[in-house]
Amino acid sequence: MRLPDAERERLLDGWPVARLATLAEDGRPHLVPIVFARAGGALWSPIDGKPKIPGTPARVRNIERDPRVALLLDHYDADWQQLWWIRVEGRASLCDTDTEAEAALRSKYPQYHEVPLFAGEPLLLRIDPERVLTWTSSSR
Amino acid sequence: MRLPDAERERLLDGWPVARLATLAEDGRPHLVPIVFARAGGALWSPIDGKPKIPGTPARVRNIERDPRVALLLDHYDADWQQLWWIRVEGRASLCDTDTEAEAALRSKYPQYHEVPLFAGEPLLLRIDPERVLTWTSSSR
Repeated sequence: MRLPDAERERLLDGWPVARLATLAEDGRPHLVPIVFARAGGALWSPIDGKPKIPGTPARVRNIERDPRVALLLDHYDADWQQLWWIRVEGRASLCDTDTEAEAALRSKYPQYHEVPLFAGEPLLLRIDPERVLTWTSSSR
Repeated sequence: MRLPDAERERLLDGWPVARLATLAEDGRPHLVPIVFARAGGALWSPIDGKPKIPGTPARVRNIERDPRVALLLDHYDADWQQLWWIRVEGRASLCDTDTEAEAALRSKYPQYHEVPLFAGEPLLLRIDPERVLTWTSSSR
């Protein structure tokens, strides 16, 4: 029912997408998919050059107000024996630069050859995991 | 930047997986992937027979305490021109039975020929959308 530790680590390094939950001003949960990379024990996600709804992204405003976040990596498959998820609960902060994180993002996503790593002024979400829980539908 | 209405409706009817954010007792966001079906204007997700962490699922305890939820349908693709998401903000409630919802779930997921639709006593999450926002990286 839990993923083996080595598989959890491999997926945290390599899985291409996660869903980030933050807390809106009124306390409601807010959700958005993100790309991310791991560096220095944290998970990093840039406010990148993919098209954005105008204005400061809600995730940024939310994290400024309340750093508590959850991040979900998961795999859906029509074969329900192949399901798994990894939930990271942690604290997020905003950074304007981190050399190791930027290198990890560029290495993980060749898309950044085309898409700017930052939409405007450099801005990275840094997520420091406090608790990581895993689940899988099959014994491995 | 927004999905066409017809595509949004098609995806809300047919997309196989969503990620559900609820609020934990301490106000933190909680995240879990769910299967769901649409019926009668609501989105429904069963506490089904897929293997579960023992005890009452956190999503159920959270919704009993605070009905505010967010649901994210999204598609990740290495081609960043193909990205889209649909975010449903709404209120969730717990139901022990709904004939139309159960039929919609069984019709959408042939997996329920093998996996029990309910893990124990019938229990459905019902999500009534209050706001639906869509985003896509490409003009369509």
